[in-house]
Amino acid sequence: MNIPDKAVNRLSLYHFILDDLREDEQYISSTKIAQLLNIDDSQVRKDIKYLDNSGKCRVGYDVKKLKSAIEKKLGFKEQRDAFIIGAGNLGSALAKYDSFSDYGLKILAMFDNDPKKIGTVINGKEVFDLTKIGNLSKRLNVNMAILTVPRETAKGTALYLAGAGIKYIWNFTPSVLDLPKDVKVWNENLIGSFLRFKNNDEV
Amino acid sequence: MNIPDKAVNRLSLYHFILDDLREDEQYISSTKIAQLLNIDDSQVRKDIKYLDNSGKCRVGYDVKKLKSAIEKKLGFKEQRDAFIIGAGNLGSALAKYDSFSDYGLKILAMFDNDPKKIGTVINGKEVFDLTKIGNLSKRLNVNMAILTVPRETAKGTALYLAGAGIKYIWNFTPSVLDLPKDVKVWNENLIGSFLRFKNNDEV
Repeated sequence: MNIPDKAVNRLSLYHFILDDLREDEQYISSTKIAQLLNIDDSQVRKDIKYLDNSGKCRVGYDVKKLKSAIEKKLGFKEQRDAFIIGAGNLGSALAKYDSFSDYGLKILAMFDNDPKKIGTVINGKEVFDLTKIGNLSKRLNVNMAILTVPRETAKGTALYLAGAGIKYIWNFTPSVLDLPKDVKVWNENLIGSFLRFKNNDEV
Repeated sequence: MNIPDKAVNRLSLYHFILDDLREDEQYISSTKIAQLLNIDDSQVRKDIKYLDNSGKCRVGYDVKKLKSAIEKKLGFKEQRDAFIIGAGNLGSALAKYDSFSDYGLKILAMFDNDPKKIGTVINGKEVFDLTKIGNLSKRLNVNMAILTVPRETAKGTALYLAGAGIKYIWNFTPSVLDLPKDVKVWNENLIGSFLRFKNNDEV
């Protein structure tokens, strides 16, 4: 799709802004969007050029058209099915986060190795024994996993997932996974995010 | 500190790698780090140049020295105190995430407006009535808040936090906050992260 990562990030934030507008706000200017995000409005206009957006006029962007252009370009409707690995606090929080489905992420089931958790249902998602994942990923045609296990077991669990046919891992653990090249890992580095925050803080 | 955001992110991942090494692994090469992250080793060497790191020799970087150089440069020991706003699933998950303290983030208390949650204790952090935050932020000298409330109440809660003296908001809600310029917001955009994942996926 050829949109740089940072632009995808900003476009999703623009979408949040449009989503939060009142029903009667039909147009929005790049200046208004830029001001809310504390960025330059030329940046906003540049990002919007990545879209197939036709709703631009003198008073600004047509809100509905811009929203749907973002949704189309970033693939909100292209559903990706995923499993959550780890039914602990973070895994459960993500399982309860219903907004994901608006952006094309559908959580089908969860996996854990704790007998007390197996068989429970979190927000409609059943928790299965981790050893069942190979079977279920094949049956449900799921190749994406969201990894939320404790740090100590992250690497081993990830290897196990790779063996079970998982090809995409969204990694929420503070661990760098060592996996075969055909498995793509996306690190959700909360620690790094906090450290960036800290290092950018001039106070 | 003048380290670009992306380098801070990568340096924190290098630290995870060093942390996970066996006790007897005394040296690590830039090639090994690069290979684990699927990046170029010149990138690793460039990032490490931001540090005051003396432990480089023929066989690679001295693990202990490199670790401590990262810790020093990224300020792991400089503690930031913070409150978690919202004692729901994500707020509770973050409150239970003890690793934060290793990187200099200390959660002192939580706030919510649900009478059923107020007074409870999550991983040693008491949940207070949100109206108490102005008082407590002054008394404990806390100016950072981690926002995990539902999307619908995000903007209003953030404004309330600003009024109560909070100057830094780590925003986990899918909402762009509209705040006075003296409040710094850091968006932890999980939706954007998933959309980047999706858009980068060539399959």
